[in-house]
Amino acid sequence: MIHIDGAAQIATLGGAGMKPKIGREMAELGLIEDGGIVIEDGKFVFVGSSGEARRYVEQHSGGKPVTVLSAAGKTVTPGLIDPHTHLVFAGSREFELTLRLQGAKYLDILQAGGGILSTTERTREASEEQLMAEAERRLDRFLAHGVTTVEAKSGYGLRLADELKQLRVARRLNAVHPVELVSTFMGAHAVPPEYKGNTDAFVRTVIEEMIPAVARAGLAEYCDVFCEKGVFTVEQSREILMAGKRWGLKPKLHADELVSGGGAELAAELGAVSADHLLHASAEGIRRMALKGVIAVLLPGTAFFLMAPPADARSMIDAGVPVALSTDRNPGSSPTESLPFIMNLACLTMKMTPAEVLTACTLNAAHAIGRASDIGSIEAGKQADLVIFDAPNYQYLQYHYAVNLTDTVLKKGRVVIHDGKRVTA
Amino acid sequence: MIHIDGAAQIATLGGAGMKPKIGREMAELGLIEDGGIVIEDGKFVFVGSSGEARRYVEQHSGGKPVTVLSAAGKTVTPGLIDPHTHLVFAGSREFELTLRLQGAKYLDILQAGGGILSTTERTREASEEQLMAEAERRLDRFLAHGVTTVEAKSGYGLRLADELKQLRVARRLNAVHPVELVSTFMGAHAVPPEYKGNTDAFVRTVIEEMIPAVARAGLAEYCDVFCEKGVFTVEQSREILMAGKRWGLKPKLHADELVSGGGAELAAELGAVSADHLLHASAEGIRRMALKGVIAVLLPGTAFFLMAPPADARSMIDAGVPVALSTDRNPGSSPTESLPFIMNLACLTMKMTPAEVLTACTLNAAHAIGRASDIGSIEAGKQADLVIFDAPNYQYLQYHYAVNLTDTVLKKGRVVIHDGKRVTA
Ligand SMILES: [Zn+2]
Ligand SMILES: [Zn+2]
Repeated sequence: MIHIDGAAQIATLGGAGMKPKIGREMAELGLIEDGGIVIEDGKFVFVGSSGEARRYVEQHSGGKPVTVLSAAGKTVTPGLIDPHTHLVFAGSREFELTLRLQGAKYLDILQAGGGILSTTERTREASEEQLMAEAERRLDRFLAHGVTTVEAKSGYGLRLADELKQLRVARRLNAVHPVELVSTFMGAHAVPPEYKGNTDAFVRTVIEEMIPAVARAGLAEYCDVFCEKGVFTVEQSREILMAGKRWGLKPKLHADELVSGGGAELAAELGAVSADHLLHASAEGIRRMALKGVIAVLLPGTAFFLMAPPADARSMIDAGVPVALSTDRNPGSSPTESLPFIMNLACLTMKMTPAEVLTACTLNAAHAIGRASDIGSIEAGKQADLVIFDAPNYQYLQYHYAVNLTDTVLKKGRVVIHDGKRVTA
Repeated sequence: MIHIDGAAQIATLGGAGMKPKIGREMAELGLIEDGGIVIEDGKFVFVGSSGEARRYVEQHSGGKPVTVLSAAGKTVTPGLIDPHTHLVFAGSREFELTLRLQGAKYLDILQAGGGILSTTERTREASEEQLMAEAERRLDRFLAHGVTTVEAKSGYGLRLADELKQLRVARRLNAVHPVELVSTFMGAHAVPPEYKGNTDAFVRTVIEEMIPAVARAGLAEYCDVFCEKGVFTVEQSREILMAGKRWGLKPKLHADELVSGGGAELAAELGAVSADHLLHASAEGIRRMALKGVIAVLLPGTAFFLMAPPADARSMIDAGVPVALSTDRNPGSSPTESLPFIMNLACLTMKMTPAEVLTACTLNAAHAIGRASDIGSIEAGKQADLVIFDAPNYQYLQYHYAVNLTDTVLKKGRVVIHDGKRVTA
């Protein structure tokens, strides 16, 4: 039994039932001041006031050993959840930033040997062991920032063997690393060089070869497509995601990132779990997403790193779209694992409030990866994933910005970070 | 003897002599690939290639114990320097952020009990011990982010006893904490409530009572004023800074933050060491600063946190003004200790390059606090302050954003952070 004792504040995110939070609900955190939490067998068994939690322990511990963790002066939240990352890849692309700051455009960067296909080249060349090692360091950083569950997409292999290699790495990491992974197949992330000028043929390969192989191997839960002008059209995206659905892969979309192209509308039409990016989503697309309950996964770090204006989060919240947030961790447009900083950005660049961003990185993010029955809130019966932050209240997390305030992290009831340091079993 | 061995890259910042870097010089980092550093008696004694450094150790160690620190795959820079902070104060003001995000204006926040004078109230109430404890935690965070020297201003006491209390805290911390402090008296930070509507009388108190007392006690090296419409006029600021000069306190200015008000021009006229903020500095003011060599200390974190456009760094660099960067650590407009993140922001919001921002946080920052003869570069004879970053090259520091890449920190030749953790003697 683990007893989290005397927390200054607990943001439980409880009481929402099985729906993501929309509109004003996003600001309701189920706060408990001076709270306590009891954990047994990897699950929350009690959440309430400090006094009630102490009585619960007295009445139910019955001689079992009890580990008491004081959270005095600190704030407890559910483990943070990142519902959109490109975790598994080889290499880094720091030289592109200097070029961009000097005014280089997308084509200049391609000519300098950069861009997404340079990551594809390195990822194809990399052994599974090398990819494991690189992705594991990224997961370590996620965990150090309070992130206990991460969605991970393939999409740098762009050919069957290497897409499977990326997905196998995610599966192996999920087995050995405290951070839980949820896998998405994204063969349609870019058109590989061998299909240059022949996107339709590549779409056929994705549909006829890759999706069946991924699904048969049970390597992914979701299928994602980069639906964008110059990459995959709405028609191609629809075809791929429908094929995915037939094979049991639930649809997600990279939609309307660079131009308004009907991505949000397609997400609503297909009943996608989420549409992500949405910097240029149309008002009609947003309205349809709200009607269908499609979650908007917003990525303000990517806008920040590309020096572009972010998505219009306030309009989406006003329209009743459930909003989640993510790092978009990838080597080109968002090289960070700090989901807490993404929350800072969501406040300061998208005017979301400190309450809304916490909902967006816990309960709504859990819904965006189909895990809300197990994680995303601190409620009796759910898996005991939580973070103790060195902060007197949840607002403070968005105030003391760009500094990692993670003090202690529990994953499935096990202490994996304590006093800011990794605990190894 | 300490031997930093086999660094992937060392940004020495050497070779500039005793002038801050301007224009294109700001991009020259004195890089050494595959480098080594030797330290003795708290100072750098050798910097060069890995091979040369090993030979130096062989020839000069003569039986002395040698501590070897491998920097394989990592990047070494001078210890980072923050030339503008309001380190010593009591309390935090996280509730103001939520109010601001909901559209509250400055006056609304004052009415809700916020604003600078709420910090004054808490700072006046606080004991010296409480202020020590709070400021020490902030210094710990600075150090964890690779910052080895910090300028600290008074300016929340706003009456003699409490201004002296703030400055004493900085002096005591300087004696016990690895981070070195440089003190600035800033009695003219705001008009305290007891002088409301009577700024001239407060200016007299600053000049006739506070400056002499601070100078006699030897508690500050610099005098700073918030020269801004509605706070202190150019005339009042000039009078205060001239008085400071007579008492041996070198002038600095908070200038042109909210409106263009002649602050940059005044800094040039007085030969100030630095003018800080400068979001609305006039072109003529910038030209005069360049002529007089006044350093522009830019604070992009403050602009970010206040959701305002940042200063025009590129024009200043083009005009030949030496640029430094700082967190502006304070409880209202910039609650962060991450100077590395301020560098990320300077790139992404002010289009400074990764090379320029490193110069701005090392050599030019050293000049901004009059310490360039001792710190700011890795050169034989200088104090051995350095950071080993978990990054293959200096560009990577601006690429892997919002994550603390500090691996090891040496202050005066002593290892104070290792493997990201504080080392206590
Ligand atoms: Zn993505
Ligand atoms: Zn300031």
